Amino acid sequence: MIAKTPPMGWNSWDCYGASVNEETVRKNAKYMAENLAEAGYEYVVVDIQWYQPTADSHQYKSFAELSMDEYGRLLPAVNRFPSAKDGQGFKALGEYIHCLGLKFGIHIMRGIPRQAAFLNTKIKGTNITAREIALPNSICYWNPDMYGINTEAAGALEYYNSIFGLYAGWGVDFVKVDDIAREFHYGEIDLIRKAIDNCGREMVLSISPGASPLEQAEYFKQKVNMWRITDDFWDRWDLLEAMFERAEKWAPHSGAGHWPDADMLPVAAINQCYGEDEWTKFTQDEQITMMTLWCFLRSPLMIGSELTKLDDFTLKLLTNKDLLKMLSDSFNARQIYRRDDEICWLSVSKTGGYYSALFNTSDKEKEVRINLTSCEIDNVTQIFDLWSKEMIDIADALNVSVKPHGVRAFYIS
Amino acid sequence: MIAKTPPMGWNSWDCYGASVNEETVRKNAKYMAENLAEAGYEYVVVDIQWYQPTADSHQYKSFAELSMDEYGRLLPAVNRFPSAKDGQGFKALGEYIHCLGLKFGIHIMRGIPRQAAFLNTKIKGTNITAREIALPNSICYWNPDMYGINTEAAGALEYYNSIFGLYAGWGVDFVKVDDIAREFHYGEIDLIRKAIDNCGREMVLSISPGASPLEQAEYFKQKVNMWRITDDFWDRWDLLEAMFERAEKWAPHSGAGHWPDADMLPVAAINQCYGEDEWTKFTQDEQITMMTLWCFLRSPLMIGSELTKLDDFTLKLLTNKDLLKMLSDSFNARQIYRRDDEICWLSVSKTGGYYSALFNTSDKEKEVRINLTSCEIDNVTQIFDLWSKEMIDIADALNVSVKPHGVRAFYIS
Amino acid sequence: MIAKTPPMGWNSWDCYGASVNEETVRKNAKYMAENLAEAGYEYVVVDIQWYQPTADSHQYKSFAELSMDEYGRLLPAVNRFPSAKDGQGFKALGEYIHCLGLKFGIHIMRGIPRQAAFLNTKIKGTNITAREIALPNSICYWNPDMYGINTEAAGALEYYNSIFGLYAGWGVDFVKVDDIAREFHYGEIDLIRKAIDNCGREMVLSISPGASPLEQAEYFKQKVNMWRITDDFWDRWDLLEAMFERAEKWAPHSGAGHWPDADMLPVAAINQCYGEDEWTKFTQDEQITMMTLWCFLRSPLMIGSELTKLDDFTLKLLTNKDLLKMLSDSFNARQIYRRDDEICWLSVSKTGGYYSALFNTSDKEKEVRINLTSCEIDNVTQIFDLWSKEMIDIADALNVSVKPHGVRAFYIS
Amino acid sequence: MIAKTPPMGWNSWDCYGASVNEETVRKNAKYMAENLAEAGYEYVVVDIQWYQPTADSHQYKSFAELSMDEYGRLLPAVNRFPSAKDGQGFKALGEYIHCLGLKFGIHIMRGIPRQAAFLNTKIKGTNITAREIALPNSICYWNPDMYGINTEAAGALEYYNSIFGLYAGWGVDFVKVDDIAREFHYGEIDLIRKAIDNCGREMVLSISPGASPLEQAEYFKQKVNMWRITDDFWDRWDLLEAMFERAEKWAPHSGAGHWPDADMLPVAAINQCYGEDEWTKFTQDEQITMMTLWCFLRSPLMIGSELTKLDDFTLKLLTNKDLLKMLSDSFNARQIYRRDDEICWLSVSKTGGYYSALFNTSDKEKEVRINLTSCEIDNVTQIFDLWSKEMIDIADALNVSVKPHGVRAFYIS
Repeated sequence: MIAKTPPMGWNSWDCYGASVNEETVRKNAKYMAENLAEAGYEYVVVDIQWYQPTADSHQYKSFAELSMDEYGRLLPAVNRFPSAKDGQGFKALGEYIHCLGLKFGIHIMRGIPRQAAFLNTKIKGTNITAREIALPNSICYWNPDMYGINTEAAGALEYYNSIFGLYAGWGVDFVKVDDIAREFHYGEIDLIRKAIDNCGREMVLSISPGASPLEQAEYFKQKVNMWRITDDFWDRWDLLEAMFERAEKWAPHSGAGHWPDADMLPVAAINQCYGEDEWTKFTQDEQITMMTLWCFLRSPLMIGSELTKLDDFTLKLLTNKDLLKMLSDSFNARQIYRRDDEICWLSVSKTGGYYSALFNTSDKEKEVRINLTSCEIDNVTQIFDLWSKEMIDIADALNVSVKPHGVRAFYIS
Repeated sequence: MIAKTPPMGWNSWDCYGASVNEETVRKNAKYMAENLAEAGYEYVVVDIQWYQPTADSHQYKSFAELSMDEYGRLLPAVNRFPSAKDGQGFKALGEYIHCLGLKFGIHIMRGIPRQAAFLNTKIKGTNITAREIALPNSICYWNPDMYGINTEAAGALEYYNSIFGLYAGWGVDFVKVDDIAREFHYGEIDLIRKAIDNCGREMVLSISPGASPLEQAEYFKQKVNMWRITDDFWDRWDLLEAMFERAEKWAPHSGAGHWPDADMLPVAAINQCYGEDEWTKFTQDEQITMMTLWCFLRSPLMIGSELTKLDDFTLKLLTNKDLLKMLSDSFNARQIYRRDDEICWLSVSKTGGYYSALFNTSDKEKEVRINLTSCEIDNVTQIFDLWSKEMIDIADALNVSVKPHGVRAFYIS
Repeated sequence: MIAKTPPMGWNSWDCYGASVNEETVRKNAKYMAENLAEAGYEYVVVDIQWYQPTADSHQYKSFAELSMDEYGRLLPAVNRFPSAKDGQGFKALGEYIHCLGLKFGIHIMRGIPRQAAFLNTKIKGTNITAREIALPNSICYWNPDMYGINTEAAGALEYYNSIFGLYAGWGVDFVKVDDIAREFHYGEIDLIRKAIDNCGREMVLSISPGASPLEQAEYFKQKVNMWRITDDFWDRWDLLEAMFERAEKWAPHSGAGHWPDADMLPVAAINQCYGEDEWTKFTQDEQITMMTLWCFLRSPLMIGSELTKLDDFTLKLLTNKDLLKMLSDSFNARQIYRRDDEICWLSVSKTGGYYSALFNTSDKEKEVRINLTSCEIDNVTQIFDLWSKEMIDIADALNVSVKPHGVRAFYIS
Repeated sequence: MIAKTPPMGWNSWDCYGASVNEETVRKNAKYMAENLAEAGYEYVVVDIQWYQPTADSHQYKSFAELSMDEYGRLLPAVNRFPSAKDGQGFKALGEYIHCLGLKFGIHIMRGIPRQAAFLNTKIKGTNITAREIALPNSICYWNPDMYGINTEAAGALEYYNSIFGLYAGWGVDFVKVDDIAREFHYGEIDLIRKAIDNCGREMVLSISPGASPLEQAEYFKQKVNMWRITDDFWDRWDLLEAMFERAEKWAPHSGAGHWPDADMLPVAAINQCYGEDEWTKFTQDEQITMMTLWCFLRSPLMIGSELTKLDDFTLKLLTNKDLLKMLSDSFNARQIYRRDDEICWLSVSKTGGYYSALFNTSDKEKEVRINLTSCEIDNVTQIFDLWSKEMIDIADALNVSVKPHGVRAFYIS
C-alpha cells in the first residue's frame, strides 16, 4: 500500500516559487538525506513550471514559451535543469535522489499545454492531435499554461498515459497535480488515476489547490492519496488559526492511503527566490502549534524552507520523534472541545494509550484545566509531555500553562 | 458526574402522545424494572401536557384550561394522575418509581403558562407577577400553552427556581425541556441550568426539539446533558437513513455528561392512544440498524413502545449486552466511509479493541468487503459478531453479507 | 369608485403613538376642515390602541386590559374618548368629523383580542366562541393584543362581519389594518375585503406595515386601496433617500383605486405624546423632496403632525396646488434615470403635458442638465416651476441648480 | 442623435449561425431595400465568425485558423466573402448595402484573437504586442476565439482604436459586441465606447448576450445603444412567455438612444444553414403577441429569417405601420396588471392618446374585460384595433375576445 502513513518531505514552492533549479534541488535533497531522512522525510518535490525557462519568482509570465517535446509533453527547462539536456528530462535528477535513499516528486498542471494546441502536436502513439482533446474554454484562472482535457474525447487517456509513462521513465514517485481539486475536475482525476495505474510505477497522487470540497471526501479517499484542505498556507497566524476548523472537519477522513493535506510547513528560510533572505514570521510557539495540529490531523508533512539554512530550533521542531510517531501510531483523532480560546484534541494510540493536545489561540499565556474523567480517559498511569519530554504528575485533572498561540501535547497511558 | 454514560429508559410520547396517565406509567415502570433494568434502562419519563385534563392524542387543544397552582406552576391533571390529588403533584408517582429502583423524568415546555399571565399570578416567594416576566410575543408555534420568559426581567430566575424546586420535591431525576433547542433560546437554557443547580437535586437536563444547531455544539456540551439532533423520529426508513448523516456530524461531540440525542426508539407497540394498536413499521433489520447506529453514536436510548406488549424479538433487540456495552466502553466513534449504499463506522474500545459496523442502506442484500489494514486495524486476533454472537474467521479482509437496510457489527480485538 | 385618487388626510401615529385622545382628534379635525380641506385633505384617522385605557406613548404595554364588548369587539377607551361612554363607540366622534365635511378613519390590528380568547366570548349572532376561531400561535411580534384568525373556521367571516358592522354603525370611512401586509396574511385580507363589502358602507382599506412584498402587487391592486411600501417612515434622510428605490419599483402599480403607500409625512410638530414638543428633523429642502416624490409616485398623503402647530412653511408645503394636481392629473410615472446623485422622474399629464423632477441626493448644491430631446419630450412650449411658480426659459436642455437633498420640479407643456 | 428610435433590420444569426456568406447577405439586403425599408428596417447585420473560413453551422470549431491581418485584426474569410480579397475587408459589401439606402452592421467578440497572442502580433501604430494586452485567463466560455483585454495595459485602447478604425474604413454603421453584457465587462465596454467615439464614424453600439444585469441599467443607458435583456431568443412559447416579465422590468429604461433588446424575431424561414429548410414554430397569434410586446417595450426589431422566403403573413406582420408607429410615437410604457393569464400594457402616445394591449397567455380563447376608467383613461373618443384595423365601439369598458397566446392591441384617443 502506497502512502500508508502521511507522506513527508520537501517541496520547492515556499522557497523558490516557479523558479527552482537543479542545483537547489540537489542541495536540499542531500541535506534531507543527511539530516531529516532518519525522522521519516523522504519525498523531494519539484514544484510548478520546471518547464518554463524564464520563470524567476512566484509570479507566472503570460504566454511564455515552454519547453515541450514533439508530443506536447512538457520537459524541464534545460537552462534551469542542465541534466535534462538532450531530452533526458528528470532522469538524472531522479537517479541522484534515489541514490540518496530518497524519493522524487514533481508538480504538474491539469491538462495539455496551450502551446501544444496551437502547434497541434500529435499525442504519442496515436494519430490524434492536441486540438482534438483540448478544451479551449477549460482554463486555470491563475496560471496561463494549459487547456483542460475533454475527458470524453478519443486520445484523452492516451495523452495522460503518455505523460505518466514519461514520468515513470524519469523515476518519479510522487505527482502533485494542480488546478484540479478546488474547482473539482473529477473527470481528469479519473483519467490521471488510470494513467498512474497504467504506468508501471507506483506514484503518490497529490491534488491541489484547496480548499477541496468536503462533500467529495469519499471520492478523494478512493482516488487520490492526499488532497489540499486549504488554499496556499503561509506564515500568518490567521491562516494557522483557521486551520483548526478545517482540521476538525477533515479529521474523520484521514486514514491509511488517503490524507487531508494542510499544505507545506513555512518554517525557517522561505521566499528565497526574490534575491531576499526571508525568515518565517511564525513565533516558535506557533510553529510548535502547527506541527502538533498537523500530526493530530495526520496531514502530510512537506517542509517549505531552504533546508541548508535550517537552524537548531527548526531542526528539532521537524524531527520530534515522539510527536512524529503519531503519524503511524495514532488514529481516530477528533477535536474534543473548543471553548473560547482553548482547543482540545484527542487521538488514540494503536498501542492502547491516548494523545491529547491543549491549544491556546489567545494572545496571553493561559492556565488550562482538563478533566481526564470527563474526557473519558480512565486509569491513567503515565503522562508524557511530547515537547518538553517530561513526565507529568498523574491526577484526575491536568492543570497546565499554555503559551500564547501555543500548545501542550501529551502521550497518556 | 450525572449522565456519565448515555441515559437509557422509557418515554411516553411515541405511545401515548399528550394523553398518558398514571396507570400506564406505573405499568410500564414495573415492566422495565423486571425486564429491562438489568440491561441498563432506568429513566421513566412522562412526556408533554401531563397538566392538561382533556388531552387525548398527539394533538394539542387550543386554549384548554390547565391544571395550575396559585404561583402559575403547572400540576398533574388529577383526572389523569389520581395520586396528584390535594396538590401532591408527582410525589407519589416518583416514589413508586424510585421504589422500583428506577429514576423519574418529566417533560416541560419552556416558559410560563399563558393562563398564568392572564390571571397574573404571583411568582412564588416574590411580589413579582407573571405578566412582568412573560413575553407576549415569544411563543411556541406548535403548542399553545406557554409564553417565553424575559430573561432580563426581575423574577425570571425566581420563576424557574420555583418550578424546579417543586420538581425536586417530587423526586424528579430527569427533565426534558421542549421548544428550546431548535429555535435556540440560550437565555432560558442558562436560567434552567442555574435553577437545576439551585434546586438541591441532581437532574439530567434534556432539550428538544431538534435539529439542534450544530454550531452550538460547545454550548450544549457545557450546559445540558442531551440535546436532540433531529425532529421527531418515527418508524420510517427515510428518517432512519437520514440519521446517518446527522450521526456523522454529531459523533465528535458525544462524551461523558453530554450526548447528542437521536430521539426515541419507535419499536414494537406504538401509537396506542387513538384506541388503535399500532405496531412499528420498521423491519427487523431496520431495527437492528437503528440500535447499532444509536450505540455507535452513543445516543441516549429511550424506548417509545408500550413495554408490556414487547415481543421476544424486540426484547432481545433492546437488551443485546454486547452491543450496549459500547455505551460505556467505546469512544471516538466516526464514520470511516460512505460509498454508494455502504456505510462503515469505527469506534474504539477502552480495553484496546475496536467496534466496527457495516451498514447496507440499499434495498438488496449485499456482499461487503472491508480491508482491515486500510481501516488501520492491525494485528487482529479475534472478530466477534455483535448480533449473531459468532466468532468470525480472521483474515486481512472481511467479506460479509449484509441484509437490505441491515447491518453487520463486530467487536475486533 | 372609492379612492379614485390617493387618499389625503391626517393620522395620529407620528404625533401621539398609541395615546391619542378625543380632544386631540377633534382639534386636528377642525384645523383640517378650516385650513387643509380645500387642498384635498379629508381623512381623519385614529391610529392604534384607541381601546387601551393606559396607553401613553409609542410603546405597547404587555397584557394591558382592553376595552371590549361582550362579543369580543374592541371599544374606544372611555377615559380617552369620553363620547364613547355607554357603549356608543366612535359614533359621536364620527359624526363630529362628518359635520366638518371630512371623513373618519380608524386603525385596527388583524385578528381577535387574546382577551376574547381567554374569556371565550361569543361571536355576535352565532353560537361560536372566540377560542374556536383564534389561532394561539398566530401573533404579531411587535404588539401583544391579538391572536390571528383561523380563516377556515366556521365563525371567522362572522367575526369580521361583526366588527365591520360595528364600524359601519360608527360611520367609519377608512380602516387601516395592521400586522397584515409585510407578514402577508392573504386569508385574513380576503375575509376583511368581504366584511367591508358586506357592511353596507364604503370604506377605504389600507394595510400595514411595510415593506409589502412586491411580488404580491397584483393581489394588492385587486383587494385593497393602499398598502405600505416601507416600514414606519420617520424624519431621517436615510429613510427618505431609500424611498427613491421603493418608489421606482412600485410606481407601475399606482392607479385608480389602488395606491402604494409611502407612509405618513413627519413634518412640523411630531412626537407630542412624551410631554415633549419635537419638531421634524427634515430640512425644508428635504420636505420639498418628500412631497415631490410622494406626488410623482401618487402615494396617499397622510400628515403626521399636530396640525394646530403648523407653521407657514409647512402649510404651504402641504397645500401646493400645482403639485397636488398630479394626484388626479398625472399617470405612468417612472424614474427616467439615476446617475450618481441625480435622480430624474417623468410623469404624464392627462391634459397633454409632462411633469418632470430633478432630485439631488448629494450634500452639495448641484448644477443639473437635462436634455429634453433625450427625455423624449418634443415641442416644448412652456416650462413651469412647480415650487417657485416661475416660468422657465424654453430651450433644448434645462440647466438648473438643485439644492442639497433638494429637488426642482416642472410642468412642461 | 444615433438610435433615436429603436434600430430595425436583419441579422444573419437565426438563419445562418456562424456560416453566413456574402451572397446571402447581398440577397437579403436587396430584399430588405425593396420590401421592408419603407416600414423602417435599415440595418443589415453580419453576425459571428465572418473571419472563420470553415464555419458551417451554429457550432464553433475549436482552434480553427482565423483570417487575420498582421496587426491581429480579424478579416472576413475570403472563401465566404469574395469581395474581401486582397485585404479589402467588408468595404465592398458595405458600399453595396449603402447603395441600397441601408446601413451595414457587423458582430465582433470582446477581446483580441488567441491566434494574435500566440503569434504575438504588433498592435497597429505601436511597438506593443498582443501578448502585452491579452489576458490569458479572460475567456468566453462558449466561443474559443479570443482572449479578453487587460484594460489597464498600455496598448489596450490602441488595439480597440485599430479595429474600429478598420471598421470605419469599411463603412460599418452598427457593431454588435458579444461576450460582454451578461458577464459584465465594463472596462472593455468603456474602451469600445471610446474607440467608437474616436473612429470618426457614428456606429450603433449593441451588446450581447443577455440577460444583462438589471442593476447596471444606468450604465447601459449612458454607454451603449442597445443591450440584450435575454439569452438567445428562439421560436418557443416558454421563451416568449418569459419575456413578459423581462419587458416589465426593463420598460422604464427604454428611451431615445438606449434600448433594451429582446433579441431577434425568429419568424418564417430560420435555421437554413444545416441544409434544412426550417420554419418558425410560433403560431400566427404568438408572432402577433411577440411583435406587439416588442413594440410596447420599444425593443430593437431585428428580423432573423431568410427574407427572400417571407410569406405574405409574415411580411404583413413585420410591416404593420400602425403598430410600428409606437417605436417613435409612444413612451412611458408599463404593464398595468398581470392577473392569471391576462396581461395588460399601457403606453402613452406623444400626440395625446394611449396604446393599450391585452395579452392572453393561456391555451384557450378568453373574454377579457378592461375598465377604462380604472385604467385612468378618461374621455375616450375613439378606439382603433391595431391589428384588425377596425374601430371599436366606445364604452366605459372594453369586452374583447383574445385568442390563445394572442393579443388585442388598440390605439385609444
